[in-house]
Amino acid sequence: MEIDLNADLGEGFGPYRMGEDEAMLDVVSSANVACGFHAGDPVIMNKTVRLALARGIDVGAHVGFPDLLGFGRRPIEADPLELANYVVYQMGALAGIAKAAGHRVTHMSFHGALGNMAAASYALAEPLVRAVAEFDRDLIISVSTNTEIERAAERIGIRTANTFLADRAYDDRGALVSRKLEGAVIKDRAGVLARVQALLQDGTITTITGNRLKVQVQSILLHGDTPGAVELARAVRGAIEAAGGRVVPVSKLAR
Amino acid sequence: MEIDLNADLGEGFGPYRMGEDEAMLDVVSSANVACGFHAGDPVIMNKTVRLALARGIDVGAHVGFPDLLGFGRRPIEADPLELANYVVYQMGALAGIAKAAGHRVTHMSFHGALGNMAAASYALAEPLVRAVAEFDRDLIISVSTNTEIERAAERIGIRTANTFLADRAYDDRGALVSRKLEGAVIKDRAGVLARVQALLQDGTITTITGNRLKVQVQSILLHGDTPGAVELARAVRGAIEAAGGRVVPVSKLAR
Amino acid sequence: MEIDLNADLGEGFGPYRMGEDEAMLDVVSSANVACGFHAGDPVIMNKTVRLALARGIDVGAHVGFPDLLGFGRRPIEADPLELANYVVYQMGALAGIAKAAGHRVTHMSFHGALGNMAAASYALAEPLVRAVAEFDRDLIISVSTNTEIERAAERIGIRTANTFLADRAYDDRGALVSRKLEGAVIKDRAGVLARVQALLQDGTITTITGNRLKVQVQSILLHGDTPGAVELARAVRGAIEAAGGRVVPVSKLAR
Amino acid sequence: MEIDLNADLGEGFGPYRMGEDEAMLDVVSSANVACGFHAGDPVIMNKTVRLALARGIDVGAHVGFPDLLGFGRRPIEADPLELANYVVYQMGALAGIAKAAGHRVTHMSFHGALGNMAAASYALAEPLVRAVAEFDRDLIISVSTNTEIERAAERIGIRTANTFLADRAYDDRGALVSRKLEGAVIKDRAGVLARVQALLQDGTITTITGNRLKVQVQSILLHGDTPGAVELARAVRGAIEAAGGRVVPVSKLAR
Repeated sequence: MEIDLNADLGEGFGPYRMGEDEAMLDVVSSANVACGFHAGDPVIMNKTVRLALARGIDVGAHVGFPDLLGFGRRPIEADPLELANYVVYQMGALAGIAKAAGHRVTHMSFHGALGNMAAASYALAEPLVRAVAEFDRDLIISVSTNTEIERAAERIGIRTANTFLADRAYDDRGALVSRKLEGAVIKDRAGVLARVQALLQDGTITTITGNRLKVQVQSILLHGDTPGAVELARAVRGAIEAAGGRVVPVSKLAR
Repeated sequence: MEIDLNADLGEGFGPYRMGEDEAMLDVVSSANVACGFHAGDPVIMNKTVRLALARGIDVGAHVGFPDLLGFGRRPIEADPLELANYVVYQMGALAGIAKAAGHRVTHMSFHGALGNMAAASYALAEPLVRAVAEFDRDLIISVSTNTEIERAAERIGIRTANTFLADRAYDDRGALVSRKLEGAVIKDRAGVLARVQALLQDGTITTITGNRLKVQVQSILLHGDTPGAVELARAVRGAIEAAGGRVVPVSKLAR
Repeated sequence: MEIDLNADLGEGFGPYRMGEDEAMLDVVSSANVACGFHAGDPVIMNKTVRLALARGIDVGAHVGFPDLLGFGRRPIEADPLELANYVVYQMGALAGIAKAAGHRVTHMSFHGALGNMAAASYALAEPLVRAVAEFDRDLIISVSTNTEIERAAERIGIRTANTFLADRAYDDRGALVSRKLEGAVIKDRAGVLARVQALLQDGTITTITGNRLKVQVQSILLHGDTPGAVELARAVRGAIEAAGGRVVPVSKLAR
Repeated sequence: MEIDLNADLGEGFGPYRMGEDEAMLDVVSSANVACGFHAGDPVIMNKTVRLALARGIDVGAHVGFPDLLGFGRRPIEADPLELANYVVYQMGALAGIAKAAGHRVTHMSFHGALGNMAAASYALAEPLVRAVAEFDRDLIISVSTNTEIERAAERIGIRTANTFLADRAYDDRGALVSRKLEGAVIKDRAGVLARVQALLQDGTITTITGNRLKVQVQSILLHGDTPGAVELARAVRGAIEAAGGRVVPVSKLAR
């Protein structure tokens, strides 16, 4: 059994740091790198890419709204075709830095409000995913199941990797439960680990209503910017390996 | 006799426009496209690249300091290795947009204060040029003669295209006379055209002291953001063609 | 009969210009100055304030979203209390520049998407207007009639100036007709002038359904960034003065 | 004996934090607040001002270059009159936020590279200090002794507060020893405390050559962004109070 562990990294800016990038890079198999719009800058991108290369880790472009002040978490109503240009710009910038460092970009994902809006709107997801395919048809898009991003990727014919958020509740359709609802975030460590183990053993998650749901998942997303994040990440990796699983970069696994 | 005509284009930002990009794109054979740091944004970059593609024109990355407010014209003392990351980021962003549009980046040049500082300092030029080569060894760097950028490119082994500024005076070494000195800028149209014609006929320029100097030039840089710029550009192109010359993209000519 | 003519000015940024500020400053009695978030920068603000001071013209803070790339025209869903801080920051910056120049800020208005969103939502308008009052209770807020901004200003007890957009259609409630609807923008010059004259003569506007509506208006907003804008502005001023009216700064008129 | 303790605070941006602002605000008597150019944003400024107000602490504008990416530490060669506009903009923004919060700005200081450049150049210091005086002649400028900023303030006639950096070596003229030289930074806590005690007892500092120099100092600058900074700050305050001194806001002390 093989699975990818990934995390959103390189989210500092200039003098500012966010999360413990180096420690997380020792745990994950894929790094989703911020590209300078909602977070990240060329120096941090370069450093993150080189650390990933030294560890044999995949790098992906984590693209967002041009809103450093709001960390890309504020919905902005903009022309989808203009946003598609923003997405290509960010992917190209990271691909350039990776190329100069001797590495390459294998995947991409949509950050924060841009991701949430595209997940909910085919009219937005379609031009964004099309732009990804026009930029590089070999890229893998990290998606949550049952989203408009996943549907657009299927229609356009670009590979996806389904990502499981171990600390978030899912509903019976396999979709994430909104953070605004009670029980949406699983806070106890044992609970998170139990969910990872169930996923590894029989490919199921227990939904918020208590049903067991079969899911296809290639990646587990770990958070790097909360207290205890690194320890939890290590515990998840330990649980995978104790169960005989292997942690491998997303490019080895995507459908 | 073949020569490239190029211009710095795509220098708007968001709602702002600078220069007459579309008219200039009908005259030049290569466009140096601003990459979002000193000017330009993803939407304008995409539009400029597609207009260039439709006309069979080369696109190059025109990279500068991250200083939109100062249009990249203010010297910033920054770590050369950090600046090298900025340069790669910008080139990558444009390369991504070109790739998604079905075009490719053939060359690059340094804008404003970054270009002036690198032209004068090997300690700055070397890491910047090295970063260009690490990003893409097939790129051509547009240079002025007798600059540290040209010297770094020779040592690192990346192609250059020498650029002639038709409206600027040169000294007896073939270097540009500082704008601060009297006579540095040739303002009358007939004077500019005469310089272009001399260059085409016998490969010489008349220096500010009146000497004639043999030069190797692959490109003539036209300005697009001054009154009468488009008309002057057309006149230069007309003079070249009237003399039996051909205007060809820089990638056909670089050493 | 007295009325204020105002325009949104100082909307350039760094090397970029928008509209013909100096020509408009010779026509208007009040300038709404962009404050560096959606447009404008400290140098342009200072220049605009000094030009206004020299002409005896009021200056107001024209505040918007922090989105230069989108010119403040893209809706951003942000915490209203955070937006209130952005509004105060911008008003303070302009007030500082005005004070250093020997002038003062008399009024303020909300630009673009921020203005549209606040006009439609009391939950947004209330904290923004409250922040204006906390900053300076003597400021006048330029409003369109029948908006949540106007209602918030009434409840909080801060003066307003009703602004008439001479080139826009109004509905029978006195509210602006959405730009998306046919007939929302009056494009012929004679039509615009006729509307101004009707307003001056009997205080009425003809609505989009053909009814005549009595309105209370202190200001006419002129646009400065469209072709022919300056000529139209001069014609409007000419029509007012020909009818025996006087053009006076908004601070002389607000309720 | 009375002295001010101040620190540079509010240096986060959006989601990013720098230093332990709340803990430092319990120790200092004056806060130098970043104003959104090199660091800080309207929300953080508002929060910092309100925390200061609740503690009876002075707030000052800590103004810098528009270079968030470089934290205002990179020299930028710009027109001094344009920089003067940037300075006024930042002071005005903070003054606006302070006013809306019921507080007021008592002082200002120049951050990072802007401060270093102005300290060394009268041609730069003069227009900047003049702009401060034009904005508010009652402000106090925090200065290091023997700088061009101090000299400009004297000539223009605006009050200053001399600031002592307890962890930095001084030369025999009373000027700061460059960080590039050995011994420029005093790293041991006992050494720093001894310097503070000597200053309090007889108004002297021991220079890097071992001489004792009489100095006039109104403020001690504490750093808030280094490990152990808060503990050192508390120890300095404790040493002052143990010696019978009183810590008072800078506005009570400036010449």
